[in-house]
Amino acid sequence: MNKVIIATVLSGFISTQAGAANWEALPSTAPAPADNPTTAAKVELGKMLYMDPRLSSTGTVSCNSCHNVMEGGDDSRPNSMGVNGQTGGRSAPTVWNAAFYSVQFWDGRANLLEDQAKGPITNPIEMGMKDHDQAMHVVKTIPGYEAYFEKAFGKNSMNIVNAAKAIAAFERTLITPNSAYDRFVKGDKKAMTEQQQKGMNKFAELGCNGCHSGAAFNGPKMEIGTGFFQKFPTFADNAYVGKYKLMDDKGRGEVTGNAADNNMFRVPTLRNITDTAPYFHNGSVKTLDDAVRVMAKTQLNKDLSKQDVSDIVAFLGALTGEYPEITMPRLPASTGSTVIAE
Amino acid sequence: MNKVIIATVLSGFISTQAGAANWEALPSTAPAPADNPTTAAKVELGKMLYMDPRLSSTGTVSCNSCHNVMEGGDDSRPNSMGVNGQTGGRSAPTVWNAAFYSVQFWDGRANLLEDQAKGPITNPIEMGMKDHDQAMHVVKTIPGYEAYFEKAFGKNSMNIVNAAKAIAAFERTLITPNSAYDRFVKGDKKAMTEQQQKGMNKFAELGCNGCHSGAAFNGPKMEIGTGFFQKFPTFADNAYVGKYKLMDDKGRGEVTGNAADNNMFRVPTLRNITDTAPYFHNGSVKTLDDAVRVMAKTQLNKDLSKQDVSDIVAFLGALTGEYPEITMPRLPASTGSTVIAE
Repeated sequence: MNKVIIATVLSGFISTQAGAANWEALPSTAPAPADNPTTAAKVELGKMLYMDPRLSSTGTVSCNSCHNVMEGGDDSRPNSMGVNGQTGGRSAPTVWNAAFYSVQFWDGRANLLEDQAKGPITNPIEMGMKDHDQAMHVVKTIPGYEAYFEKAFGKNSMNIVNAAKAIAAFERTLITPNSAYDRFVKGDKKAMTEQQQKGMNKFAELGCNGCHSGAAFNGPKMEIGTGFFQKFPTFADNAYVGKYKLMDDKGRGEVTGNAADNNMFRVPTLRNITDTAPYFHNGSVKTLDDAVRVMAKTQLNKDLSKQDVSDIVAFLGALTGEYPEITMPRLPASTGSTVIAE
Repeated sequence: MNKVIIATVLSGFISTQAGAANWEALPSTAPAPADNPTTAAKVELGKMLYMDPRLSSTGTVSCNSCHNVMEGGDDSRPNSMGVNGQTGGRSAPTVWNAAFYSVQFWDGRANLLEDQAKGPITNPIEMGMKDHDQAMHVVKTIPGYEAYFEKAFGKNSMNIVNAAKAIAAFERTLITPNSAYDRFVKGDKKAMTEQQQKGMNKFAELGCNGCHSGAAFNGPKMEIGTGFFQKFPTFADNAYVGKYKLMDDKGRGEVTGNAADNNMFRVPTLRNITDTAPYFHNGSVKTLDDAVRVMAKTQLNKDLSKQDVSDIVAFLGALTGEYPEITMPRLPASTGSTVIAE
């Protein structure tokens, strides 16, 4: 696979602390489930559906509204804003590299991207459709869509399952390889600055990669549906917990109803983390510097020096990759009649 | 210029009714004001600003939210939805070919696209910024923007005037040439179907092109700032006026305070009209068929047969042109700190 063991590739270069970590480069393609192999036709249709605000009750909110691929794959907001200006309690996770998770959502309540894609469409405070039939009614009312479904899935294939498959196929193309970090672990010793390398060692020394491991820095590779969750905060006896309301959201516990899952959250990717402020499940922390401080204290019970924070933030900057160029889809016209659901 | 006089180009082909009209093809470039010549650097920056929702108080509404270039340049809604789910009374005019107007907005309250671009940013129910300083503060807080301003306008050029100039420069590239109609009037006799040609003749015979004249079907070419306004409805003694609330909005009269301007509206383009339902300043009419019936009755006091409506709608379909392919801009990151105004 794309796993690169630093010890063999860069032996003697990285300090002993970081040498203990398995530093992996990001794969350039994402795995797809057996029943939804990625094809160009699906990606083309999926991009349209992903960008189409008519899939929301007001015609104003698309997948891209909260997971903006022109930005860091999120919306720069602490929480997202759905139809009619409604807001929820959680911050939109980035769609970039989302294909490298074994579960979706902060609380892991969906397994595949295919399952995730269906959720927000009928969430009353997100895209606000009554049900998937209403959403598909809109899609079917737009004449141009049929040909794209046919090309991707065959005749009479306009249904929510295929719509979600197409969106997931598009999302699997949203990968940001070739960051300074990736080039560095592949052998380009000049790809990261000295400070970034120092931060990388500090990151490993502190144990950040105990959770933020793997190619996407979101935990070990797992079977779809497994989910790599951690308690956040693990150490709750500090001022950050109250200041940033870190325990108000029960996370996975709200899905399972199991007290042991309270405050458990999926470990998020650190890829492109410079581009996804504000931070954490509730978007309560505005800057990456503060996010690093909060993490060290709440997860490792450590107080970082200003220099440590600065070095780690520099290293995190090396995780920002190359965003592929995306051509805007031309959304099929409603041809002479409005289709907005509300 | 690009004016094509049908009599010389297609002599003997078009019936005598339509022969009376000057049918013009759409120019492939738009004129620009002397103080803002269109350059690639301005278009590049303008596209970013146009797509950037961080220019709104909530970080959710960009120019593109209501004037979506992936669609017909509007939002498929009767009225647009701004920050916090607020709505106004008017329907978003299409941005496609907006460069071919001598005034902007339904009521002509701005002259150039440069003036128009500034309006929604500080409109409390649109993008909701307190003032242009607040908007530019956000832009300045995003480090990546400075280089693009410098490339387009020189050093220390980050101000609202240049932001608006860049957006206007981008909008001047939003032209949809080469419709079936354009090819037809340039001599390709097979470009329009027989029914479309019949509809074209009917359109001229009824006198629709008394107002919907010129290359963009939005009136004669005029100096910037002039504005081609018409009373809508001209004939108010019919059921449509009440049914579609056509007289509730005073249009230009609300800008000038002059009773003579009441219910005067800028004559809108018919280009790509198939892609911009629902119709009219208040978006009250859902289908193009009905819009044609209402226009004939309220502006010409004529009741159209089902066949007439069908033919004219077929002709209007011939006005849908080629939308240029647009690459998504990569919006400069806020680099580790959220910038949302609210």
